[in-house]
Amino acid sequence: MPHSPANHATFLVAARDQPGLVARLAGFFADLGLNIVDASNHSDADVEGGPRFYMRLEVDLDGLSRPAAHAVLGPSVSRSALEGAFARLGESIGATWSVRYADHVAKVAVLVTKEGTCLYDLLLRQQSGELPCTIPLIVSNHAVLERVAESFGVPFYALPVTPDTKRDQERRLLDVLHRHHIELVVLARYMQVLSDAFLAEAPPVINIHHGFLPAFQGARPYHQAHARGVKIIGATAHYATADLDQGPIIEQDVARVDHRMGPDEMARVGRDVERVVLARAVRAHLEHRVIVEGPRTILL
Amino acid sequence: MPHSPANHATFLVAARDQPGLVARLAGFFADLGLNIVDASNHSDADVEGGPRFYMRLEVDLDGLSRPAAHAVLGPSVSRSALEGAFARLGESIGATWSVRYADHVAKVAVLVTKEGTCLYDLLLRQQSGELPCTIPLIVSNHAVLERVAESFGVPFYALPVTPDTKRDQERRLLDVLHRHHIELVVLARYMQVLSDAFLAEAPPVINIHHGFLPAFQGARPYHQAHARGVKIIGATAHYATADLDQGPIIEQDVARVDHRMGPDEMARVGRDVERVVLARAVRAHLEHRVIVEGPRTILL
Amino acid sequence: MPHSPANHATFLVAARDQPGLVARLAGFFADLGLNIVDASNHSDADVEGGPRFYMRLEVDLDGLSRPAAHAVLGPSVSRSALEGAFARLGESIGATWSVRYADHVAKVAVLVTKEGTCLYDLLLRQQSGELPCTIPLIVSNHAVLERVAESFGVPFYALPVTPDTKRDQERRLLDVLHRHHIELVVLARYMQVLSDAFLAEAPPVINIHHGFLPAFQGARPYHQAHARGVKIIGATAHYATADLDQGPIIEQDVARVDHRMGPDEMARVGRDVERVVLARAVRAHLEHRVIVEGPRTILL
Amino acid sequence: MPHSPANHATFLVAARDQPGLVARLAGFFADLGLNIVDASNHSDADVEGGPRFYMRLEVDLDGLSRPAAHAVLGPSVSRSALEGAFARLGESIGATWSVRYADHVAKVAVLVTKEGTCLYDLLLRQQSGELPCTIPLIVSNHAVLERVAESFGVPFYALPVTPDTKRDQERRLLDVLHRHHIELVVLARYMQVLSDAFLAEAPPVINIHHGFLPAFQGARPYHQAHARGVKIIGATAHYATADLDQGPIIEQDVARVDHRMGPDEMARVGRDVERVVLARAVRAHLEHRVIVEGPRTILL
Repeated sequence: MPHSPANHATFLVAARDQPGLVARLAGFFADLGLNIVDASNHSDADVEGGPRFYMRLEVDLDGLSRPAAHAVLGPSVSRSALEGAFARLGESIGATWSVRYADHVAKVAVLVTKEGTCLYDLLLRQQSGELPCTIPLIVSNHAVLERVAESFGVPFYALPVTPDTKRDQERRLLDVLHRHHIELVVLARYMQVLSDAFLAEAPPVINIHHGFLPAFQGARPYHQAHARGVKIIGATAHYATADLDQGPIIEQDVARVDHRMGPDEMARVGRDVERVVLARAVRAHLEHRVIVEGPRTILL
Repeated sequence: MPHSPANHATFLVAARDQPGLVARLAGFFADLGLNIVDASNHSDADVEGGPRFYMRLEVDLDGLSRPAAHAVLGPSVSRSALEGAFARLGESIGATWSVRYADHVAKVAVLVTKEGTCLYDLLLRQQSGELPCTIPLIVSNHAVLERVAESFGVPFYALPVTPDTKRDQERRLLDVLHRHHIELVVLARYMQVLSDAFLAEAPPVINIHHGFLPAFQGARPYHQAHARGVKIIGATAHYATADLDQGPIIEQDVARVDHRMGPDEMARVGRDVERVVLARAVRAHLEHRVIVEGPRTILL
Repeated sequence: MPHSPANHATFLVAARDQPGLVARLAGFFADLGLNIVDASNHSDADVEGGPRFYMRLEVDLDGLSRPAAHAVLGPSVSRSALEGAFARLGESIGATWSVRYADHVAKVAVLVTKEGTCLYDLLLRQQSGELPCTIPLIVSNHAVLERVAESFGVPFYALPVTPDTKRDQERRLLDVLHRHHIELVVLARYMQVLSDAFLAEAPPVINIHHGFLPAFQGARPYHQAHARGVKIIGATAHYATADLDQGPIIEQDVARVDHRMGPDEMARVGRDVERVVLARAVRAHLEHRVIVEGPRTILL
Repeated sequence: MPHSPANHATFLVAARDQPGLVARLAGFFADLGLNIVDASNHSDADVEGGPRFYMRLEVDLDGLSRPAAHAVLGPSVSRSALEGAFARLGESIGATWSVRYADHVAKVAVLVTKEGTCLYDLLLRQQSGELPCTIPLIVSNHAVLERVAESFGVPFYALPVTPDTKRDQERRLLDVLHRHHIELVVLARYMQVLSDAFLAEAPPVINIHHGFLPAFQGARPYHQAHARGVKIIGATAHYATADLDQGPIIEQDVARVDHRMGPDEMARVGRDVERVVLARAVRAHLEHRVIVEGPRTILL
């Protein structure tokens, strides 16, 4: 799953399944003279309410400057003209869809509390070019990770919270996110439950749960895992929803533990899983690979 | 974890932790002139009720015919003399212990219903020498796998069961197990819950659960996993206890699934995990590597 | 990767990359009124000789009885008419392509020597419906596995071979394969090197190498691995070619080993990897997912 | 494998196998009134030159202040007295041995060139307490990672090298290492081959190779892996020896790749493996778990 060159656009499409969808979608781009460099589609017949169609198309936009595109889109070919034309196609097939341009660098906010492993990991991957995004701000309900933010030159917002100030703190958090045009919020071990009201107004939120959901929901999953005597622990990255720990799962992975490990040692092993799982989920989201359908995700 | 040569004995010991235990246990064998070819011990300080000590010692019994052993055990050196002496040591340190001789071939009964993958797998591993046991009988509540038993030359007992006859069927099952001196019962997808009364009288019972416990307890775990949209499925081998799906876990493993897989496809992928997990658990039990402590196991 | 329903057809296409290919391929099926239920394509820009396009399309043939298909293919719609039309499309875009019908049950021959693990595994998967094929014959240069063939009711051909009779034995082997219309040969631990002449005339041949190629080529890979002190061993399934152990790799997997394992114990662990890797490779081939490009494979 | 409490000592012992070794070693500590909290031993019968015995003992030194210890070691019980007594035991059984005290914090130098992933990873793990060491200096033949060293407050030594100055640069490097009493050198993607002369005088050196040795030795392993079409890539941590890429392997791990990944993408996936493998190897070394025997390691 390599990064896309800058002149690529990626379309995600979900619709009721029906014959001819691939042809119509691919035909749309062929008529414009645009090359599809990578695509996959899948029809799921077992969905309540009837078969569903999912497709991801990665398209080379180079052709937009050539006559074919002009013939379709008119003299002033633009991305909004492209989107307008695609919207008409989408409507005709009853699709929900979205597009991401590879040269658009998403703005991601990272929320943390005291544990810095996942934060460092995201910052380093962003810095090395692994994550196609910027991280214009870090928010925490504690001050302890401010130094990390500083060493990467990222503005740090300390927004402490108590049960009494939760509503107010979330309001201020929303303000910060909106002011910076944040498109994705990553909870990198942010130890606060976000309210429904907040989630309703916030950009998409990805959370890392340090347990192998749906086992070990709630607090202290490593202590739960240790007490139960499991031989494998895991981590789960999911979209945050109003139901705690119930959001659509994006990615999971596991690691082996043994009888010599107490909960703290399990936590150490788990941290290596958490950060990799979170990074993969963030990357999949940024690369426009994730379709959410009810309680599940489709990764294309 | 290679098989032990035939003249080896393996001791498992659990006791309250106290200084000098390793020296006393190792010294016991040194005094007898017996070489310890593999051993490991671990003290767990975090156990309720005080620190616990666990040790596995694999000993070469060749030395039993030499003078040192005679000096300790008397003129007629025998395994029961060895055990008697070890029992005195065990008592003095307050240990629970057990011994397995590598040349003792355990008798294992396999219980099945209709699904044959795990059964075949166990039979083949036994046949190839991977599992140090014989399988003198296969029991099922259905007739469908009789042919498999036949092709391996293993007696097959069909013991059908209905809610009304459950008590009686379990009684007959116990009779069969006892008559054949069965030392381990393996539930290789036996789709019946065993009663507490049965478990109290039966030899140890290992069950394979086709879910990554403690997630997806109960029936149809793959359907549960599919509905929840997990990215990884698993299987769990555990000792059967009166609490369904709550017995001490011996082994677990996992496999990746994706959005193209329905529950049936997940089941197919899961079968490969199940049989490997079950075989590892049975092998660990037969090699005398498993200490059960409350809800957990120690694998040495 | 579920099995396809019986009325599906799967097309594999490779061509020089060029804009409009997805639209033309998908359009072909849309014009016929056939639904594409699963597809993926990828363009690789880094290929010597210019960018390459690869696509797999799984199509529901139900629509073949409807007017749209008749309009394109004429009154007597048949698979050969479908293939003829697709061939014209393929030619026009310079593609190599092939089709597999889900209701076509491929005939697979398994070649073995003395080691039966992979053979049993393939027979059981075939029997349980995991592998969309029949296994009409088993061939061996030894008699030892004849009993296994018998217990599954599969004809067994013993074709012993010595250096002097190799050419003749291969000739007889080819005769058997052709006589039974074998479409795929699986070397399930067949301990003979097949000659170039044989491979040139035989159906595709998949081999399992019990090493993590390209490490540990040649004989006794577990002894090589043990001597080198590796911490992980593996197995590799590849198409057999004239260059021993150099054929295009279809699938690989690994397992962890430790210092307590000698070469024999590594071999035991390795067997579990081998059979799973081989089964996955055979399945991928039978599901028409593998495109061979020079020394590599594309799995779609 | 949890960290040891500060008052623990860990002994590693290798010797010709002989009956009574465990009893003598454990008895030594029992006589001193010291509790063995974790131990394992293994005898390998398949070693050229005769069976070998390996043991790791982790001992609680609390008892050193009690009468039993005084009775054995004399009035002024000290670690050097303990070591002196153990040395006599070691000599009597022909053992090579070493001891590490948990409260001794090893000094580790990290050598890098331009790639910072492994460096960051080691610094973060050290900082979080995962690695029982300090990192008093970072050395590089380039200046590019100086900023990273600074942000962690670690002195950075730029020691550029050319073919002509190699001998001189290594001499200066040795001076720096010795001056800082470095006990372990970690090559965290240091792109220089160290000379035999340097290795002979340096502390132990652990290197991370970004290939699954022994496959893909030498330069650009990801390009080699891509060209060969492997489905799994890996990384190997080993002690550096005079034979490039041939040193005793400490740890390996792997990750899956697919046809969509070019060498650069493989390198990205590989980096996640490299840093985890290197960290595990460094940790195993620092926890005194690694015995080197010829071309192999024993991890206890």
